[in-house]
Amino acid sequence: MNKDIIIVIATALASLLAILFAALTAKKVLGYSEGSELMQKISRSVRKGANAYLSRQYKIVIIFFAVMFVILGAMAIFGFLTPFVPFAFLTGGFFSGFSGFIGMKIATASNARTANACMEGLNKGLRVAFSAGSVMGFTVVGLGLLDLTIWLLILKFIVKLPDEAVTDAMLTFGMGASSMALFARVGGGIFTKAADVGADLVGKVEAGIPEDDPRNPAVIADNVGDNVGDVAGMGADLYESYVGSIISSCALGIAAFKSFNAMALPLCIAAIGVLCSVLGTFLVKTKEGASQKQLLSALSRGTNFSAILIAIVSLPLVWYFLKDNWTIYFAILAGLISGVLIGRSTEYYTSDSYKPTQNLAKTSETGTATIIIGGLSVGMLSTLIPIIIVSVCVLVAYFVSGGAGSASMGLYGIALAAVGMLSTLGITLATDAYGPVADNAGGIAEMAGLDKSVRERTDALDSLGNTTAATGKGFAIGSAALTALALMASYINKIQSIDGGAEKIKNLAINNPTVLIGLFIGACLPFVFAALTMNSVGRAAQSVVKEVRRQFKEIAGLMEGNADADYAKCVDLCTKSSLHEMILPTIVAVIVPVIVGIVLGPTGVVGMLAGATASGFLMAVFMSNSGGAWDNAKKYIESGQFGGKGSENHKAAVVGDTVGDPFKDTSGPSINILIKILSMVSIVFAAVVVSFSLL
Amino acid sequence: MNKDIIIVIATALASLLAILFAALTAKKVLGYSEGSELMQKISRSVRKGANAYLSRQYKIVIIFFAVMFVILGAMAIFGFLTPFVPFAFLTGGFFSGFSGFIGMKIATASNARTANACMEGLNKGLRVAFSAGSVMGFTVVGLGLLDLTIWLLILKFIVKLPDEAVTDAMLTFGMGASSMALFARVGGGIFTKAADVGADLVGKVEAGIPEDDPRNPAVIADNVGDNVGDVAGMGADLYESYVGSIISSCALGIAAFKSFNAMALPLCIAAIGVLCSVLGTFLVKTKEGASQKQLLSALSRGTNFSAILIAIVSLPLVWYFLKDNWTIYFAILAGLISGVLIGRSTEYYTSDSYKPTQNLAKTSETGTATIIIGGLSVGMLSTLIPIIIVSVCVLVAYFVSGGAGSASMGLYGIALAAVGMLSTLGITLATDAYGPVADNAGGIAEMAGLDKSVRERTDALDSLGNTTAATGKGFAIGSAALTALALMASYINKIQSIDGGAEKIKNLAINNPTVLIGLFIGACLPFVFAALTMNSVGRAAQSVVKEVRRQFKEIAGLMEGNADADYAKCVDLCTKSSLHEMILPTIVAVIVPVIVGIVLGPTGVVGMLAGATASGFLMAVFMSNSGGAWDNAKKYIESGQFGGKGSENHKAAVVGDTVGDPFKDTSGPSINILIKILSMVSIVFAAVVVSFSLL
Repeated sequence: MNKDIIIVIATALASLLAILFAALTAKKVLGYSEGSELMQKISRSVRKGANAYLSRQYKIVIIFFAVMFVILGAMAIFGFLTPFVPFAFLTGGFFSGFSGFIGMKIATASNARTANACMEGLNKGLRVAFSAGSVMGFTVVGLGLLDLTIWLLILKFIVKLPDEAVTDAMLTFGMGASSMALFARVGGGIFTKAADVGADLVGKVEAGIPEDDPRNPAVIADNVGDNVGDVAGMGADLYESYVGSIISSCALGIAAFKSFNAMALPLCIAAIGVLCSVLGTFLVKTKEGASQKQLLSALSRGTNFSAILIAIVSLPLVWYFLKDNWTIYFAILAGLISGVLIGRSTEYYTSDSYKPTQNLAKTSETGTATIIIGGLSVGMLSTLIPIIIVSVCVLVAYFVSGGAGSASMGLYGIALAAVGMLSTLGITLATDAYGPVADNAGGIAEMAGLDKSVRERTDALDSLGNTTAATGKGFAIGSAALTALALMASYINKIQSIDGGAEKIKNLAINNPTVLIGLFIGACLPFVFAALTMNSVGRAAQSVVKEVRRQFKEIAGLMEGNADADYAKCVDLCTKSSLHEMILPTIVAVIVPVIVGIVLGPTGVVGMLAGATASGFLMAVFMSNSGGAWDNAKKYIESGQFGGKGSENHKAAVVGDTVGDPFKDTSGPSINILIKILSMVSIVFAAVVVSFSLL
Repeated sequence: MNKDIIIVIATALASLLAILFAALTAKKVLGYSEGSELMQKISRSVRKGANAYLSRQYKIVIIFFAVMFVILGAMAIFGFLTPFVPFAFLTGGFFSGFSGFIGMKIATASNARTANACMEGLNKGLRVAFSAGSVMGFTVVGLGLLDLTIWLLILKFIVKLPDEAVTDAMLTFGMGASSMALFARVGGGIFTKAADVGADLVGKVEAGIPEDDPRNPAVIADNVGDNVGDVAGMGADLYESYVGSIISSCALGIAAFKSFNAMALPLCIAAIGVLCSVLGTFLVKTKEGASQKQLLSALSRGTNFSAILIAIVSLPLVWYFLKDNWTIYFAILAGLISGVLIGRSTEYYTSDSYKPTQNLAKTSETGTATIIIGGLSVGMLSTLIPIIIVSVCVLVAYFVSGGAGSASMGLYGIALAAVGMLSTLGITLATDAYGPVADNAGGIAEMAGLDKSVRERTDALDSLGNTTAATGKGFAIGSAALTALALMASYINKIQSIDGGAEKIKNLAINNPTVLIGLFIGACLPFVFAALTMNSVGRAAQSVVKEVRRQFKEIAGLMEGNADADYAKCVDLCTKSSLHEMILPTIVAVIVPVIVGIVLGPTGVVGMLAGATASGFLMAVFMSNSGGAWDNAKKYIESGQFGGKGSENHKAAVVGDTVGDPFKDTSGPSINILIKILSMVSIVFAAVVVSFSLL
């Protein structure tokens, strides 16, 4: 056996280890008690709703994948693609969806268990919720690495394709993952926010009953939403980022170095990242009655330990594979550090421990309009620091990798920075995915009428989840931007490798009007996409509002607690409308790059990718952070500041929070996927565009 | 005398004709009666407040100009600039400010006169208000052309500089105009919205008194705001667009054709535009009791006539100057048509005659949060059509001008499209500036307790003003994008003409990381700028809210109408806080291009300009249209739809309108100037950047 195959097998083993760890952790979690009969019943309802949603979502997704398979198959027959591509596309979609599915399964199995564990104590609750998050985190990285290495083994060592053709087919695999991720994020995001907004608007605002009150007909749908949006959606999303960053750096590595070593490096960093993350999880525990700060430091201990370990181990790896260019190590380091810094910046702008959110809470004193204006401007202002961080990271990664001498080496460095940023994904995703579990546990505690101390504990865990979610979003956005840039470079390489392509992509100067127009259209896409997804949430939420109002009116004794609400109806409504609404945005994302390619040619596509990346990054940060700041400003007021719960200020803050919901949980995160799927689709259709483009 | 000088003098004569026409119109307007003693008194208060604001604004602006003059002087001494540049900078600022000043003077002199004329009838009212708008429109174009031709005469025919050096100095003149415009737009925009929001929040929402009620202490400040923001600010803004588009096409014409003819063409189109616009104004009249539609068609008749006339006359002009490239004519035509189409698109998205705003009004049924989400998404979605229009316009302008063969000719075509778009400025600005006059007249009618029928007439005129304002904004935004692209091309030419510059700007490819980083930072600027200006409005409004609340509490008998409010205090407060708040955003706009230039070099600057233009255009359209849609959704509800005035739905719509205020009248329009001033500053500091840049 040669060295190369050993490396790939070692990576495969690391991925299996991640999956094994996830399985063992799942077994442990499932061993805990689900609590009382009532808790089990509630948890079952949530589970049932989530399963029903996912199975119907998959049915729609399958149609899309079947159509795309036929299209890609036809393209392969006509010689525009290698024959493996359609199959790679399918597996990408399958594994991405499967990651989300597993995450959702374990999350819905752990909510009651977490609530029950919180009866025993805070530490126990943290362990259960975090373990559930870990299952998700390691499933995502494990399945991602596994799929990659299987394809690598088949294409490189069995079919014996040349390296360029291998990475080429694997990029299609990325397109499958991205499409699935977009469906999951958009559909799940619409579901969760429609349910949430619907439940809040009628329940909290109109009927004046507390959050998670069992009398609210949308309360189960709300909990289902946390699982299908924040868990399954996020799982598919980050699976896609993870795989995308690794594939694009493999492709750019081959282009720059013409050596398998450059392809092995990102794989090995990812493999090492898995191992270090597993070790990190063992450090996550806290003592009883821990403060918010201590809880946070419990989680940070795990992620920081993993990150430092990866930073240390990567150096000899780089030295081994690319001795003459060992300074590329600093690109990986830049990525790792940037991810953390963007997370910090997100935390600064959205946590109520800092000025921006506290000041935002204060603007509620002059009414709803001022808190809306304030939140929008916090979000817009918060784009500055992340864009500087990403800019510095790109420049550092480019130049330490020798970009000054060879552009392709520099671009490889940028891709590696994304791999570095995502190398800790196993554990960062665990800290991120644990949030919705804690949130659900709180809901169950409320609905099952558990002791107040239990709800306090789940609230502490949940509120921590908001902070870790902010960090997680920082990683997702930062890595999306870097990966999108790397994919743009891969696209250019791909076009140049096609007969007649080099001619069509000669003038990439930014003052070439085709590039400029592409840039304009690309920059516009995130705005349009955000509008479409927000409208979808609005429409879906309105249908929920009407249904909840109807139930309050028509079900006698509901408000008095003498009759049960028809939860299933709300779940069904959310399912139907969110699935209906997810189709248009996804199709836009897939079709636009092809249209732009045909009309403006490859130079226009490159402009479009650059424009979409820049404006998409800004919109994603803006929307996520505005949403986060509103959410926490509301929580800050609820903690007794500026009049506290029930005051006029609080009402204003609730409106802010409701506006922020689709911002931070639907539109914002979907844009991350949008900017990558645009490049993936462009790459897959590159040969068609070169043949048929007008310019 | 040679042919060239005749052309310049003819242009100068056209500019003098515009000024003469403005003066005669002003004389006519001033001949009308101001109405009763009370009306005169109110009008005087508004005038006094506006004068006080402007004189204090100019004092601050003078400091800025003095500092810049010293900096530019020092640069000239060290050989980075020609010695005329600092003086050109000053005159640009002076004339821009002067345009705003004249507009403000006539607007504040015509508000009571319009109200009085409305007592006689709708047609009379329209004529007075429109005449006031015409004074402003023709002052702007007249002074703009005059300043241009004077400098041209001095530099080309007296000092006898080569053509390149002439356009170079004139670009600095543009930077002066832009700086002044930015101060006026930002300062005036903050003033008007702080007063408006303050008056509305306490008066309408808290105290429950009608709009423009004389008991509201902020009511005069609100009227002052219309004048200093919507009139003086807009005047300076469009002066800057107008001059900027002409200068940049002169500069690109010289670069492309090395012939004065290419410089004479934009000047002559502008001159012809002035004459055609004057003729168009005579068609603006309506019959008594005219419907909204008839009023609109009265205004459209004037602008359409002017536009068609210009389209016809331009063809022989192009034929005369550039016979071999007469197809450039279609670039001018593309610009003219695009301006109209963008205006139409703005109207579609923001007028309550169409679905988007009607649907937006409907979302108020489910509360404040949904109307906010709805308005944001209308704005974001509304970016798509304008961006396609601008894209098509750019492509057409580029290719019909021979861009396929010579890029510089194509870029000249893009600049000419902007000149074409703005050639009707005299009359479009008249229809635009008439809005605030009618708005003020309504306020005076209310405060002076005139007959209800008068207020109905002023309301009809005002509501029409909202539609024309939408069209005006379309022109401002569209021309800003085209001019910014032309200025970017001028910047590249400028760098290439500097010793050692060509070397530094070799690789403008969009995948060059320096270009990309520049693009990221540039795209971020409009977000940051919007956040800063929104925050400013928020802070200034809060101080007004507090003052108004204080007066309601402390002035005995105010609510009963037995005591006068202290209007001057509110005006003073708005003045102070808006002037204080306008400084930071303006300084950011001037300093950032220099910093980016020093750190990233000229390629980074080009990336920045492209990024700022793309994202700035999108943000400006998004914010203006969201604001417009909210405003008209509120008016639609007030007209009796969805519950009408006073309903919960109306309250929700008022919040939307309040959020939209800084969107459409402060942040959105300021971004238009931002994207141009970035290029102007970059051009002026080009030589410094080439000498000192790190990359």
